[in-house]
Amino acid sequence: MSKSKDKNKPTADAVPKAVVSRLSLYLRELQRLQRDGVVTTSSTQLGQLLGFTDAQVRKDLAHFGHFGYPGVGYRCSELVAAVKQIIGTDHTWPVVLAGVGNLGRALLGHRGFSHQGFDIVAAVDSDPSKFGKTLDGIEIQPIARLPELVMQHDVRLAIIAAPASAAQEVAERIVAAGIYGILNFAPITLHLPPEVAVSSVDLAIEMEQLSFAMTNLRPPSELLPEEEEPLRE
Amino acid sequence: MSKSKDKNKPTADAVPKAVVSRLSLYLRELQRLQRDGVVTTSSTQLGQLLGFTDAQVRKDLAHFGHFGYPGVGYRCSELVAAVKQIIGTDHTWPVVLAGVGNLGRALLGHRGFSHQGFDIVAAVDSDPSKFGKTLDGIEIQPIARLPELVMQHDVRLAIIAAPASAAQEVAERIVAAGIYGILNFAPITLHLPPEVAVSSVDLAIEMEQLSFAMTNLRPPSELLPEEEEPLRE
Repeated sequence: MSKSKDKNKPTADAVPKAVVSRLSLYLRELQRLQRDGVVTTSSTQLGQLLGFTDAQVRKDLAHFGHFGYPGVGYRCSELVAAVKQIIGTDHTWPVVLAGVGNLGRALLGHRGFSHQGFDIVAAVDSDPSKFGKTLDGIEIQPIARLPELVMQHDVRLAIIAAPASAAQEVAERIVAAGIYGILNFAPITLHLPPEVAVSSVDLAIEMEQLSFAMTNLRPPSELLPEEEEPLRE
Repeated sequence: MSKSKDKNKPTADAVPKAVVSRLSLYLRELQRLQRDGVVTTSSTQLGQLLGFTDAQVRKDLAHFGHFGYPGVGYRCSELVAAVKQIIGTDHTWPVVLAGVGNLGRALLGHRGFSHQGFDIVAAVDSDPSKFGKTLDGIEIQPIARLPELVMQHDVRLAIIAAPASAAQEVAERIVAAGIYGILNFAPITLHLPPEVAVSSVDLAIEMEQLSFAMTNLRPPSELLPEEEEPLRE
């Protein structure tokens, strides 16, 4: 956010998405170590906790500066603060939820978000029968009120939990309201301006990954050549 | 599953994860085209719908055989059947849900799964106060009953929606019950035998990706060199 203190980071597009994902994993393990009373750690320990090499850990962190101390390693509290600042969760993000069906309700009740610095401050839906109902302290509002809700709460991130049929229009209304970061749960590919950051969580795709793995993990002896294999209807 | 008819595919580890994800996207667009009454399509049309090049579409499909017809392109119904067979969703997968909190309840109510070939047939939890309650037609059972539920329903896939503190133990019980495909929603890295296929959906990591993008998408003129930048506490 504009109020953020951090001014010493590369532009996001200079850092691979995978590096940012691993930063999140490092942050989580560092916070767990802190809860366990551990004061200092090392790239070797962090790597072992996550199944990465120590070189990977050092390389990832090197994108953002020098955080270790010779003969000491990393001070957990310092590295937690540094990684939070890099990720941008050294402050809380007000988030708007668009779509309050089964999944949306679960997300409203999902404590994990606020613990990680994301606070759902408003929820909108297009179903008038939901307007005015309060879930987990959040009143469901008409999606038409999105622009004022965004202004009122200084919202910078949105979560789309709307059905696939509505998601593109909902996304366009979110962007029109001035939000450029969207977490999309709807099973469609959103077509939005390139400056909008979109992360997608597609449960069917994740399940299909497993289905593919379970279906195809058979001994090679069972496999036939696939060339010219006719389609079965 | 062992009953699956398809015998003409490469082992899963021979195909990049990204290719399988794109197969899921192709399947979805093909099914949408079918619903719209479209009979044939092309790598160019599929690519445009998803923001990929036609060459990408052809290259992905070429991992699994030859599906197009000269001068015709792809017959949607044939390619849908072929991709479903490749992914393994030409049949329905019985799935067990482990952990029936907010997220678990939403997943039980999530119609999208069954539409895509995944049918939650059993749900387990470790909280005795939930035992015997029925949600969306599924009775919540003690996790101790997992082995017999897996046998009874021929379950091959599991979804973990348990808290982070319980997820590793839950995962080990799932594997011990003979399940080798797990979709994990708990925000921890599961340590399981290499033959177990695990997909993870970590909402905090997705949100942190957005936070990072929003935090760091600033004009380079605002950026200071990061070398030797002291940590702020």
